[in-house]
Amino acid sequence: MSPAVRTRVAIVGAGPAGLLLSHLLHRDGIESIVIDNRSREDIEKTVRAGIIENVAVDLLVETGASDRVLTDGHRHEGIELQFHGESHRIDFQKLVGRAVYLYPQHEVLIDLLARRIADGGDIRFEHEALEVLDGQTEAPRVVGKDAAGQPFEIVADVVIGADGSRSVARTAVVGSMTGGYFREYPFAWFGILCEAPPSSEELIYANSENGFALISQRSDTVQRMYLQCDPEQDPNEWSDAQIWDSLQSRVAGRDLKEGNIFQRDVLRFRSFVAHKLQKGRVFLVGDAAHTVPPTGAKGMNLAVNDVRILHEGLLDLFAGKGTAGIDSYEERALHRIWRAQHFSWWMTSMLHSTPEASDFDRRRQLGELESVVSSTAGSTYLAEAYTGWPYAD
Amino acid sequence: MSPAVRTRVAIVGAGPAGLLLSHLLHRDGIESIVIDNRSREDIEKTVRAGIIENVAVDLLVETGASDRVLTDGHRHEGIELQFHGESHRIDFQKLVGRAVYLYPQHEVLIDLLARRIADGGDIRFEHEALEVLDGQTEAPRVVGKDAAGQPFEIVADVVIGADGSRSVARTAVVGSMTGGYFREYPFAWFGILCEAPPSSEELIYANSENGFALISQRSDTVQRMYLQCDPEQDPNEWSDAQIWDSLQSRVAGRDLKEGNIFQRDVLRFRSFVAHKLQKGRVFLVGDAAHTVPPTGAKGMNLAVNDVRILHEGLLDLFAGKGTAGIDSYEERALHRIWRAQHFSWWMTSMLHSTPEASDFDRRRQLGELESVVSSTAGSTYLAEAYTGWPYAD
Repeated sequence: MSPAVRTRVAIVGAGPAGLLLSHLLHRDGIESIVIDNRSREDIEKTVRAGIIENVAVDLLVETGASDRVLTDGHRHEGIELQFHGESHRIDFQKLVGRAVYLYPQHEVLIDLLARRIADGGDIRFEHEALEVLDGQTEAPRVVGKDAAGQPFEIVADVVIGADGSRSVARTAVVGSMTGGYFREYPFAWFGILCEAPPSSEELIYANSENGFALISQRSDTVQRMYLQCDPEQDPNEWSDAQIWDSLQSRVAGRDLKEGNIFQRDVLRFRSFVAHKLQKGRVFLVGDAAHTVPPTGAKGMNLAVNDVRILHEGLLDLFAGKGTAGIDSYEERALHRIWRAQHFSWWMTSMLHSTPEASDFDRRRQLGELESVVSSTAGSTYLAEAYTGWPYAD
Repeated sequence: MSPAVRTRVAIVGAGPAGLLLSHLLHRDGIESIVIDNRSREDIEKTVRAGIIENVAVDLLVETGASDRVLTDGHRHEGIELQFHGESHRIDFQKLVGRAVYLYPQHEVLIDLLARRIADGGDIRFEHEALEVLDGQTEAPRVVGKDAAGQPFEIVADVVIGADGSRSVARTAVVGSMTGGYFREYPFAWFGILCEAPPSSEELIYANSENGFALISQRSDTVQRMYLQCDPEQDPNEWSDAQIWDSLQSRVAGRDLKEGNIFQRDVLRFRSFVAHKLQKGRVFLVGDAAHTVPPTGAKGMNLAVNDVRILHEGLLDLFAGKGTAGIDSYEERALHRIWRAQHFSWWMTSMLHSTPEASDFDRRRQLGELESVVSSTAGSTYLAEAYTGWPYAD
């Protein structure tokens, strides 16, 4: 084995959480090493969704992590909620004076990688972490192997598990890869990417008799749309015509603009929060710490918030102010995490139909949607959560 | 059989819905007969809960149905929501400028019966309805038997099923006694009446590790309290000490004032809406049309709203303006019914723990409560529903 590398913060995972943390630390003169088992190209080319809260956009822009979000992203001042064949706009700007940005996650990653590399950041691609060790000491370690199969070791003051929902670092914190609060859903999303102009300027969330649909956008020429489906659905089983018919049957008052479907996938739904986010000098952030179903569009936003809070604690630690800051990370982060978990569950259960739902449940759901859209307070409550609560904790 | 009696509106059931409708019709010079299988004493002496929405109080007072609600009722300008061992007040007056009145249902019945009898109303106690017939004609009938076992028959222009959750009239509307949208809950309330001063001026809704508790009031000397329990719980199985210990363990920051427990009962929870509220000239109102779990305190309020709407339709009918008014009753009433069903389900599921709930569900529930109390919009949304939406439909 080559001799161990020493750094202050070893970050496992070059996703939004890991790269943003590395960037923020660099601005304070704190060095870090980021490792990821994927290549840079893989990371930048994997098309991902992305709705970014106002506060997270501000953080990305103000810290120089991304300015493209403002120029290439699309500001969305509302969403359309459909049920009972009728459409209701939730006007974020009017209700809460905030908006969200549609800016896909891989674009954020392209920006963060460019920034880190321009700043001389140490990003090691195709480096697979196998284990995080010695978390209870002041010299925790990451061991793994690189693209050539050669073992490596990084010794740091702090190790960050930012390695996504299948986190290896999680084992060092909670004792297993699965130790957490967990919920599965009896449905999934059938997602497509297609070459077509946008069918709608804003996202349409449709609760219909035939199940949920979401009409989303990627660009002027590429669109993303989703259909509620069975988790066991084979994405290749449906013809294009079937997909368009299904989508159209779930969306009211709008002719969807069809086009060549060039990607299809089935996304399973789960809610997860790790039992612990810290053990000694090892911390979990982003999807390594929690997973939300995509209905609430909270995934990347929680990652940004985790990093924001942990970064404050790390500054204190490296300024010689002790561990009080990093030791409060878990409690502070969980405050937003559980509210966002609730919001994601709420949007999911309000909008989807389930096989077990009784006729009562179905009508109650419509009564709930009616309550939300007919009440300014109800719509505001939803808009606050969707656009993101202010960073107060 | 004695010859059939003829009236314009035959009302089955001398509960809040039936008596209020009879009273409103009388004010317009429209005669009705109300029958009930109970004695007047039974009706007046059966202690029932009662939280009355602002709009319903106004209707009772303005139509002369009850003025005691203002003098003997207690105006509640908020409730206390407890979770995670902390207490949060939902300030109705501040949030929505409205309040509710604590005024038990049997007091409303005492007022309505006194009013109807003073006005010469035809109320026939100990008259049991057996069947409602000929609903599809313009001369629907109620047949039954009186206290002496003698059969009777009432022929009317319209028959109203206001005969509670075990409605006989429901069969004439939906074809069976059970035809409706239905949900059961895996818990019940263990309720007590005790001789003690109030432990709190306002209602306390407590979500605790040990299950839900509700601290309510009846008067300066009698209190009503509830504990979440198993639906199969035998109310006589617990000692007084056990009951007080359980209540105290679920309520934070307050010493409950104990006293002689003189009544105990187990209340099962269900949600129900009849498949139809009208068939021809037969209508369902109040609990005959729907049941809500008591957590949202909506039972009597929905009855008042049903009657308010149906009364308007009946006025049109008897003024020779046709059946458009009565034929729109179902749709108009259901608008509030389904929102109230949702609210009752929401309060119930947010506050109770269930045996099937996972650790995730439990923490999500706390995340939801935190979202509601930390957001003015969330608290307002709850307060609007609890105090009652304005009569707009």
